[in-house]
Amino acid sequence: MTSPVPDRTQVAIIGAGPAGLMLSHLLRLRGVESVVLESRPRERVETRQRAGILEHGTVEALREVGAAARMDEQGLPHDGFELRFSGRSVRVDMQELTGHHVMIWAQTEVTKDLIALRLEQGEPLLFEAEVTAVEDVETDTPLVRYRHEGAEHVVRADVVVGADGSYGPARRAIPDRLGRRFERVYPYSWLGILADVAPSSHELIYARGRTGFALASMRSPSVTRAYIQVPNGTDAADWDDEAIWDELAARFALDDGSFTLERGPITDKSVTPMRSVVSEPMRHGRLFLAGDAAHIVPPTGAKGLNLAVADVRVLAEALAEWFATKDETLIDAYSDTALRRVWRASHFSWTMTTMLHVDPDGDPFDEQLALAHLHHIEVSEPARRALAENYRGLALGAI
Amino acid sequence: MTSPVPDRTQVAIIGAGPAGLMLSHLLRLRGVESVVLESRPRERVETRQRAGILEHGTVEALREVGAAARMDEQGLPHDGFELRFSGRSVRVDMQELTGHHVMIWAQTEVTKDLIALRLEQGEPLLFEAEVTAVEDVETDTPLVRYRHEGAEHVVRADVVVGADGSYGPARRAIPDRLGRRFERVYPYSWLGILADVAPSSHELIYARGRTGFALASMRSPSVTRAYIQVPNGTDAADWDDEAIWDELAARFALDDGSFTLERGPITDKSVTPMRSVVSEPMRHGRLFLAGDAAHIVPPTGAKGLNLAVADVRVLAEALAEWFATKDETLIDAYSDTALRRVWRASHFSWTMTTMLHVDPDGDPFDEQLALAHLHHIEVSEPARRALAENYRGLALGAI
Repeated sequence: MTSPVPDRTQVAIIGAGPAGLMLSHLLRLRGVESVVLESRPRERVETRQRAGILEHGTVEALREVGAAARMDEQGLPHDGFELRFSGRSVRVDMQELTGHHVMIWAQTEVTKDLIALRLEQGEPLLFEAEVTAVEDVETDTPLVRYRHEGAEHVVRADVVVGADGSYGPARRAIPDRLGRRFERVYPYSWLGILADVAPSSHELIYARGRTGFALASMRSPSVTRAYIQVPNGTDAADWDDEAIWDELAARFALDDGSFTLERGPITDKSVTPMRSVVSEPMRHGRLFLAGDAAHIVPPTGAKGLNLAVADVRVLAEALAEWFATKDETLIDAYSDTALRRVWRASHFSWTMTTMLHVDPDGDPFDEQLALAHLHHIEVSEPARRALAENYRGLALGAI
Repeated sequence: MTSPVPDRTQVAIIGAGPAGLMLSHLLRLRGVESVVLESRPRERVETRQRAGILEHGTVEALREVGAAARMDEQGLPHDGFELRFSGRSVRVDMQELTGHHVMIWAQTEVTKDLIALRLEQGEPLLFEAEVTAVEDVETDTPLVRYRHEGAEHVVRADVVVGADGSYGPARRAIPDRLGRRFERVYPYSWLGILADVAPSSHELIYARGRTGFALASMRSPSVTRAYIQVPNGTDAADWDDEAIWDELAARFALDDGSFTLERGPITDKSVTPMRSVVSEPMRHGRLFLAGDAAHIVPPTGAKGLNLAVADVRVLAEALAEWFATKDETLIDAYSDTALRRVWRASHFSWTMTTMLHVDPDGDPFDEQLALAHLHHIEVSEPARRALAENYRGLALGAI
């Protein structure tokens, strides 16, 4: 049976999330061909609610590959964000502190545009292609086996990239004895909602309320995205709409009474556990990992999507250099280079998470440390600048 | 029997450490009289090895009261310090980042000069005066009972200040039900040495070695002060001199081999546990607490002495204003004002402590977070600036 995509390519990419798709486009611009295999149906990839805050570097990458037209038209550039605690508010003015803003633009929209562009270009991208094995990664001729419409197929490549998320098959091709896995499970989750109501604030609000964290965000000028900290194991169905709005209102409340939360019909509810995972190394032989396949961050710092894009920006340069010259310097450095940013983001996400959440097992000293940290950001310009720099993302090569 | 010091004063100060002594001088300059009672002999107060890094604000206070001549002549101004980890070094240039340096000048010397000045002025200061009770602090006429040379005495005052350390009697005059106590005991201690050898570095070195924290400091151009992290419960006598030098050398080692540790005769060894304590509030009626009587910080951030001096700078202004005008605004604000700085220092000390020590119970994720934090300081100017600002101390009123 004929393979539905070429059975020989330079780079076999597993996963059509932002990491895999972006990599395929960056490689094409650098004259390197690739095949993208995705286990899920296209409709599922395009509708799964995920992140929505793009760092400057991610925005630039979308522009570079030519998938930024809708983002530039409909995305919401944000110059700053707000922190709330103890009934008061501190604004972090990223534009003033770092010279850059971030862009509010949902991952689902990023993915749609990257897919549409790939298909428009006639480049190999196959949905519902379930990878069953990644083999021979320690040789010069690795291969990927996959199942599509009931038949088994093989893609042989010079390089395989696992961009298949934290539960995908790629990482399993790295023997456990060669790597280390670091993990932190936080003792709380996020209950997230989408609601058909204009956002109550034109910027994001990260709040440490008396009873826990809350985040006010948005998907568009008419769609609110919001989250509250809930205990692990919470069932979203146990929270009725009014209870969610009441809790959001309480956690965002200002002592001067100047904040009013707009309420509206909730169209989606889901619970996300909070965890952090880093798998080292991010390369074994001819297999490279990118994005969630190698690392997970809690969503508090909005780093997951941005890390994935940063990974493949580094990887695309490295692979293009190697294909062009056979010089291995950049591909040999890939894992260490990417992991420096991964740990920066993991530390930042841990800082934001512990500073803004109420630890159900925490002692009063920890609570005072968190409040002291927030107060420091309030009074110290260098502290605000360091936070803003982390939030908008350090430049490639700066870390 | 006649009291050896006046039995009536405006401010009865318990404790002749830096907090109590500095307060007596600041009050005198503002026209307020005080009596200082100290339980220990003068010789003990003047020789007990303690801190040695003075923030700019502490230096300024010593100059204001006229006890800075020896410090200005013999103290060592330091423009920066070094962080070491993973075999490499990062310099934090305080002078460039914040416009201020710190002064290396031992607490014992500070205390000697403050005592000598007090006695030279003929102002009331009594050693070996053991306070047995602090009474009537909820009235306008509080009093302090003390024992001196076998006899019982009383000082009546308008205000009592407890600057008598963490185990002193003053804090016990605040009923438990009125306050909160926050505490963190760290799972390691410091083994500190004094050695008759020139410091191996002209600036302080804070190192996260593979086996734990180490600090290279100095008392003078010919006396080295150094510390290593040891398990809680360590007996200093169990460490012979060579073992200490070997461990210091290992923890300060640089990958490029460019660092050599100078060794010499060790003249003093002691073990200090690491803990953080904050007692709130710092005032009850006519009793005010200052320094260690209200809060302890681990020594990693060098904040203990500086916090004590900051407390009494705020308190001297507040009391002088109240004695002059009977306006209670500043004395009513004292506890909250002082505690904001106490929590800033507690958070900074916790950050430095956890970033630089190897937690014997810690998991690998924590270790990577600490290394990521150090790496952030290495690559980010705002992160270095925020650290330097904390280290040299925020200005009074800035927090």
